[in-house]
Amino acid sequence: GYAKLDTHRKIRSGFAEVIFCSGKADEHLRQIVGKLYEEEGEVFGTRASKEQYEMLKKTYPELEYDEISGIIKIEKKGKKQEGKIAVCTAGTADISVAEEAAQTAEYFGSRVERIYDVGVSGLHRLLARLDAIQSANCVIAIAGMEGALASVIGGLVDKPVIAVPTSVGYGANMHGLSALLTMINSCANGIAVVNIDNGYGAGYMATQINRLGVRHE
Amino acid sequence: GYAKLDTHRKIRSGFAEVIFCSGKADEHLRQIVGKLYEEEGEVFGTRASKEQYEMLKKTYPELEYDEISGIIKIEKKGKKQEGKIAVCTAGTADISVAEEAAQTAEYFGSRVERIYDVGVSGLHRLLARLDAIQSANCVIAIAGMEGALASVIGGLVDKPVIAVPTSVGYGANMHGLSALLTMINSCANGIAVVNIDNGYGAGYMATQINRLGVRHE
Amino acid sequence: GYAKLDTHRKIRSGFAEVIFCSGKADEHLRQIVGKLYEEEGEVFGTRASKEQYEMLKKTYPELEYDEISGIIKIEKKGKKQEGKIAVCTAGTADISVAEEAAQTAEYFGSRVERIYDVGVSGLHRLLARLDAIQSANCVIAIAGMEGALASVIGGLVDKPVIAVPTSVGYGANMHGLSALLTMINSCANGIAVVNIDNGYGAGYMATQINRLGVRHE
Amino acid sequence: GYAKLDTHRKIRSGFAEVIFCSGKADEHLRQIVGKLYEEEGEVFGTRASKEQYEMLKKTYPELEYDEISGIIKIEKKGKKQEGKIAVCTAGTADISVAEEAAQTAEYFGSRVERIYDVGVSGLHRLLARLDAIQSANCVIAIAGMEGALASVIGGLVDKPVIAVPTSVGYGANMHGLSALLTMINSCANGIAVVNIDNGYGAGYMATQINRLGVRHE
Amino acid sequence: GYAKLDTHRKIRSGFAEVIFCSGKADEHLRQIVGKLYEEEGEVFGTRASKEQYEMLKKTYPELEYDEISGIIKIEKKGKKQEGKIAVCTAGTADISVAEEAAQTAEYFGSRVERIYDVGVSGLHRLLARLDAIQSANCVIAIAGMEGALASVIGGLVDKPVIAVPTSVGYGANMHGLSALLTMINSCANGIAVVNIDNGYGAGYMATQINRLGVRHE
Amino acid sequence: GYAKLDTHRKIRSGFAEVIFCSGKADEHLRQIVGKLYEEEGEVFGTRASKEQYEMLKKTYPELEYDEISGIIKIEKKGKKQEGKIAVCTAGTADISVAEEAAQTAEYFGSRVERIYDVGVSGLHRLLARLDAIQSANCVIAIAGMEGALASVIGGLVDKPVIAVPTSVGYGANMHGLSALLTMINSCANGIAVVNIDNGYGAGYMATQINRLGVRHE
Amino acid sequence: GYAKLDTHRKIRSGFAEVIFCSGKADEHLRQIVGKLYEEEGEVFGTRASKEQYEMLKKTYPELEYDEISGIIKIEKKGKKQEGKIAVCTAGTADISVAEEAAQTAEYFGSRVERIYDVGVSGLHRLLARLDAIQSANCVIAIAGMEGALASVIGGLVDKPVIAVPTSVGYGANMHGLSALLTMINSCANGIAVVNIDNGYGAGYMATQINRLGVRHE
Amino acid sequence: GYAKLDTHRKIRSGFAEVIFCSGKADEHLRQIVGKLYEEEGEVFGTRASKEQYEMLKKTYPELEYDEISGIIKIEKKGKKQEGKIAVCTAGTADISVAEEAAQTAEYFGSRVERIYDVGVSGLHRLLARLDAIQSANCVIAIAGMEGALASVIGGLVDKPVIAVPTSVGYGANMHGLSALLTMINSCANGIAVVNIDNGYGAGYMATQINRLGVRHE
Ligand SMILES: Nc1ncnc2c1ncn2[C@@H]1O[C@H](COP(=O)(O)O)[C@@H](O)[C@H]1O
Ligand SMILES: Nc1ncnc2c1ncn2[C@@H]1O[C@H](COP(=O)(O)O)[C@@H](O)[C@H]1O
Ligand SMILES: Nc1ncnc2c1ncn2[C@@H]1O[C@H](COP(=O)(O)O)[C@@H](O)[C@H]1O
Ligand SMILES: Nc1ncnc2c1ncn2[C@@H]1O[C@H](COP(=O)(O)O)[C@@H](O)[C@H]1O
Ligand SMILES: [Mg+2]
Ligand SMILES: [Mg+2]
Ligand SMILES: [Mg+2]
Ligand SMILES: [Mg+2]
Ligand SMILES: [Mg+2]
Ligand SMILES: [Mg+2]
Ligand SMILES: [Mg+2]
Ligand SMILES: [Mg+2]
Repeated sequence: GYAKLDTHRKIRSGFAEVIFCSGKADEHLRQIVGKLYEEEGEVFGTRASKEQYEMLKKTYPELEYDEISGIIKIEKKGKKQEGKIAVCTAGTADISVAEEAAQTAEYFGSRVERIYDVGVSGLHRLLARLDAIQSANCVIAIAGMEGALASVIGGLVDKPVIAVPTSVGYGANMHGLSALLTMINSCANGIAVVNIDNGYGAGYMATQINRLGVRHE
Repeated sequence: GYAKLDTHRKIRSGFAEVIFCSGKADEHLRQIVGKLYEEEGEVFGTRASKEQYEMLKKTYPELEYDEISGIIKIEKKGKKQEGKIAVCTAGTADISVAEEAAQTAEYFGSRVERIYDVGVSGLHRLLARLDAIQSANCVIAIAGMEGALASVIGGLVDKPVIAVPTSVGYGANMHGLSALLTMINSCANGIAVVNIDNGYGAGYMATQINRLGVRHE
Repeated sequence: GYAKLDTHRKIRSGFAEVIFCSGKADEHLRQIVGKLYEEEGEVFGTRASKEQYEMLKKTYPELEYDEISGIIKIEKKGKKQEGKIAVCTAGTADISVAEEAAQTAEYFGSRVERIYDVGVSGLHRLLARLDAIQSANCVIAIAGMEGALASVIGGLVDKPVIAVPTSVGYGANMHGLSALLTMINSCANGIAVVNIDNGYGAGYMATQINRLGVRHE
Repeated sequence: GYAKLDTHRKIRSGFAEVIFCSGKADEHLRQIVGKLYEEEGEVFGTRASKEQYEMLKKTYPELEYDEISGIIKIEKKGKKQEGKIAVCTAGTADISVAEEAAQTAEYFGSRVERIYDVGVSGLHRLLARLDAIQSANCVIAIAGMEGALASVIGGLVDKPVIAVPTSVGYGANMHGLSALLTMINSCANGIAVVNIDNGYGAGYMATQINRLGVRHE
Repeated sequence: GYAKLDTHRKIRSGFAEVIFCSGKADEHLRQIVGKLYEEEGEVFGTRASKEQYEMLKKTYPELEYDEISGIIKIEKKGKKQEGKIAVCTAGTADISVAEEAAQTAEYFGSRVERIYDVGVSGLHRLLARLDAIQSANCVIAIAGMEGALASVIGGLVDKPVIAVPTSVGYGANMHGLSALLTMINSCANGIAVVNIDNGYGAGYMATQINRLGVRHE
Repeated sequence: GYAKLDTHRKIRSGFAEVIFCSGKADEHLRQIVGKLYEEEGEVFGTRASKEQYEMLKKTYPELEYDEISGIIKIEKKGKKQEGKIAVCTAGTADISVAEEAAQTAEYFGSRVERIYDVGVSGLHRLLARLDAIQSANCVIAIAGMEGALASVIGGLVDKPVIAVPTSVGYGANMHGLSALLTMINSCANGIAVVNIDNGYGAGYMATQINRLGVRHE
Repeated sequence: GYAKLDTHRKIRSGFAEVIFCSGKADEHLRQIVGKLYEEEGEVFGTRASKEQYEMLKKTYPELEYDEISGIIKIEKKGKKQEGKIAVCTAGTADISVAEEAAQTAEYFGSRVERIYDVGVSGLHRLLARLDAIQSANCVIAIAGMEGALASVIGGLVDKPVIAVPTSVGYGANMHGLSALLTMINSCANGIAVVNIDNGYGAGYMATQINRLGVRHE
Repeated sequence: GYAKLDTHRKIRSGFAEVIFCSGKADEHLRQIVGKLYEEEGEVFGTRASKEQYEMLKKTYPELEYDEISGIIKIEKKGKKQEGKIAVCTAGTADISVAEEAAQTAEYFGSRVERIYDVGVSGLHRLLARLDAIQSANCVIAIAGMEGALASVIGGLVDKPVIAVPTSVGYGANMHGLSALLTMINSCANGIAVVNIDNGYGAGYMATQINRLGVRHE
């Protein structure tokens, strides 16, 4: 087939390949799932539609699907989750992106604490959860609309913050570009930004950071 | 001359004309100052350069100049300042815009409280001044870079917030467009936005709002 | 559940929470409606689809739906509407946004006068309604395409104008960004701008302003 | 030399070539002026700096310079100006562009009426001059900031309107792009737009239109 | 009803109102068609869908529909078409916009010559029709993609050119913005631009210009 | 004075305040330097001009200045540098940003290895330094123009990569926005992005990550 | 009919006309296919939908369709393919564009080598195919997301590289604009760029270049 | 020093390194010139200022400088120039970019024919030079403002066209982005685009193409 599975990746990076399901043809997707499952004994895919899940389910009845995040997976039992990543969202509409981040991080062995709907328009909600946020090795701040959450969190923690702009909002949010610009221009220190709605990328990098923190805990 | 002074404006709007000095030729500027002074007995101009001030000073020795905001004025004595507008900035670099807003509002009869350098990267500074902010009839929130201050204030007060994006910052701030987008997309309620660095416009509209609040105090 | 209803909001801001229905899952939406109704004795939601309305109607037969604005509500009887907000539109296509603004303001206790289809391409229509506009505590100016209405109204009234750009138009209107830029750059005084199509935000802030005007009437 | 003077142009288009002086090397500019003068017995250049004028003046002492518009010219005596073009501006800062338009049209034989500083923030100024505007064969509407003037004039006349956005303004005016978008999206009929600050292009096309109107007057 | 039909328009501008059908509700559209038909004895609408046509056809069996341009009309018999407007397109995909322009101009009494598919990638096609183009009072140049047609025509005629960018193309054409920018920046003289796909606006203004040319023919 | 020094910051974040010198008035800058020096016994500022340095030097003769990065500092002797951050640049023009990053990280106690001028147009230069890059706890990838360096490094290491777009380049680089977009859209995993030219922000966050790696080494 | 088939094109350019099927009406498309087939004895179309193919198939049963690229064709037997063009993609999602490029080049007589899924996030995949790439007369580099592939290949070959940005990606990829900017700003030499997803244009120009290389092989 | 001279480049690519002088420090520039001169026996730099030239001249009295293009060079005598590249410009203001392209191509051994000031606003100038353009192996089309020249040439030749947008123009040309978009969206075949003002890149790639054509002439 055309696609070249990157089987050296795990050795090179310490992470198995993850399947980006969106837009893949059925036949193509089944082959990739099969090959990865065989080699790794587990498999993890993002942005899967319900149709893709049901198609794959016929061949792999053990496959699980999370409708909110669009994640499919077959996961080994008894994997350990170490360290701590705090995944925060501004609103409830950001939760699909947050779950992509959280479950990616968990799949790669991080312990995750979810702190959702704590946007800056009601600051007391965020302040009430500050301890949970400050005790993480890395914080993921997820927000659409004006994306101010990242700056506020950045000013409250001493650990790196990965900011994820989301496409939540309308009008001049320009499908997430507005939140992206907010986060890139943040006046707070220790913030770096990934692509709009890229929960996967945030979960991946947060795991890299979290691993540094847990290595000798 | 070409320029048509809008002498009916005060009757129509309750506000005397203010001179936008930037880019005006010397001869032109002197004429306008002269005519307004004659009609109103006072005069107020924004965005004046030091050169313009010194040129005008020769004809009007009573003229005052504020270097930070670029405001020139000759003001009647004993004018009353009523109600209350809170003018807040995220950083010290936003103060020139803030002073344009504050002095405009004061010229038009509003009482102003200045609350500067309370940006969201150090939230305790803002929370320490909350009483002062919450007791105003209208709040002006001024910030550059990512402009998150407006959202945070919007969530903490029950009065209208006028947000002023500033051109403070660099790179992807795109000369203030980033802060403007942040503020327009704010998830907090009761926020409306004026042009980048438009302290004058904010001070003017805040006065309109403040007047409603003081009318029968 | 994930969503944190902001039950302190009314005390903090004087406004009950309003539900942004667009994109919410059925189950989620029903819970929020239920909880708010219970606490407030009334409920108000924006951007509801007909499907959402019909789903909710089964549980709450007293729910009303306005197809033009997409507003759902159960409202207490006999609420007073005070002061005056003028809601103006440039064309008939802007009316859905105008109704979101007007009904939000009415729900929060403002008296609203509707002045629709008075765009600047036929100025006599606007001038014929000038008295109605000038007697309001606050004017909401709603326009798509080039959005010039806000500037013209701004020059004719002495009260604050909240400008709402709409996505009405085509081509270089860029889904409302063109009207937004027009309004932000307005040469008239006393204008501030909210997000594209954000009737809710304009109605909310206009109510804050109107309340200042009526407090001691 | 490199530059190819387009000597067939006058036959092809009915207009002699006009020199765009900005950025031309001194030697280059002197040659072009010389060659055109020789062939036409007159010469007309736009966007000339004072330095360029003084350099050329040495060779052509009959050369005239208009500092406001940056136009240089040696014009034949006794040329007739026919028909009528109305050149309108929103503010005084737009006058340099307006003079480029007006003097271009006059050079090519159009009669011009100047109607300056009649922007929409004070509508009475425009309405006071309506007769003068409505009696022209073509109207040039020049405005920066939000550029609403073109729409308002477009709704008041039955002749074509050429809209010229200017770079006047600051912040989100984006050096004139905002006014350009306003004018391109105008809800009024009979408006077409030229480049930002392109007074020359407007004066040229207005003359083409005016000539159609005067041909058999 | 909400919509204010602009019945003074014909007197003010010499043009009857034209209906922009897109997005209008059925009931609303039928009323406007009825009212205009009654007053004018004819009716003309742009951007009508087939569904709208069929709905209206039931009440007005004499209504005609042109599928390519989306124009609906009932037109008086024996109207005269005078002068000449040349309507040129770069490709066949631009024809829907061209027909909106041509039929608008014809409805308002202009004679139109159609010169389609003469884009600059095969220059001989354009040069073969040069006489037809040069004999018009006004030329409408319609092109998508890079929109170079307007510049080439502008260099070949001595009459005003109205340039219409279209949304034809893909990728970096940005839905027509690329062609719009090309045309606004044209190096040729005598070109002005209307909104993307705005055939109506071009046909309207071309008629205004053509009328000047025919007035005393 | 207006500026509020954030003296609780070190406790909250583990980092002393750093001075952003650009645009600060002399008097203001001297005060802040003085106050921080007093409290911390050392001081560190970015984006200082030579003039600012010379002004401060008079009061603080022990102040050092690095012309390439614009950093001023007075640093305590014998500070330890631990762990490892690799700072990579695509070209030599990116070195000023790289030094801002590297010296910030060193000031906060990180060991830095500089790997400059290893852009992707000559891949062998990068591959020759791979060991040095792969042994770091965190990599900073700095590039202007098309910014491809971040993606290539991201595919070669298993540690987090902080990408810094620079304004190096011309034309369609749009002052660094092009490189920013490249980096945000990277197909490689484990990359997050800071503002254009923001070496400071990258050095700060890299230190946070590096500290996690060294804590128990 | 309206469309003017450019029958002189083959003589002028050495290439027969290719049909851009997208958006063409059925009747129109059938006529063009018929006319070209008659004149050339073969026919080639891009961006055909399955529906268009099936419609045409009824009249031309010998027509072939490639679902991945959307290409329809009837090709003469025994055509020679000479020289060599290397067509490279970053990911599997770019293959539809790559096939449009490859099959266009093959139709016009070029020999093509396909090198797919060799994006920069796993550099070893690209390096493994270097010989194949370096032996081509021209390389086509196709990539979405951040588009870094073109720069890396540009640094490794001594032949011209045609870069094709694709719309593959999400969020800040802005439908391919991000990859386009990356490629236009490439720091490597010998790269030029065509429109987003324009496989056809790349295949055409690569053939022009390849023909120069094979002319006297 | 920091800069790594790419001494393997000539072997890898067949082209010696060229120095991009703009922004390089004097000391740095002198070293690079020295090292390249030593290794190659000749040296070639672009975007040099007069100051840089005079500084270098002291050490290398044989250095030549072309003020129009900003090129510095010491070139071996008797180098052969083969094949043919046509370098075309729309206006005289584009000549500085054209000379960067032409002299780069000549330095690398191509024969160049210059065809300047043949923009589309006066098509006869271009048509008069058609033979010269059609006989080249590769055409470089250079234009600012609306950049239509590339499309027109693309339709007239059967060889590859490299389009160079220039920053010439004002207003909505957005410093060359408008011309870039025009060229990328060209409706003509066989056109690819390099960065704004990138004469060097065009001359380099044209040479690669020309070499293919001359290899066996
Ligand atoms: N949601 C996601 N967003 C961005 N990248 C992803 C996502 N999920 C998986 N990936 C990456 O995409 C790669 C697969 O891309 P492809 O070769 O097109 O199948 C994986 O190796 C992951 O690195
Ligand atoms: N049409 C609207 N546009 C913008 N904000 C709205 C709108 N309707 C309601 N809201 C706000 O959105 C908040 C709810 O957002 P969420 O937490 O996502 O449910 C409410 O508290 C309102 O302040
Ligand atoms: N295709 C069109 N594009 C732009 N404006 C149009 C078009 N068709 C009609 N119009 C204008 O739109 C106005 C009607 O707008 P409305 O008041 O929203 O019905 C008419 O008076 C025309 O001037
Ligand atoms: N005018 C130019 N535009 C773009 N790239 C250039 C130009 N002149 C030289 N170059 C390239 O820039 C490289 C040198 O860049 P640097 O390493 O920053 O000195 C050379 O190897 C050339 O490939
Ligand atoms: Mg909420
Ligand atoms: Mg501060
Ligand atoms: Mg209407
Ligand atoms: Mg004025
Ligand atoms: Mg065609
Ligand atoms: Mg280098
Ligand atoms: Mg892959
Ligand atoms: Mg010329």
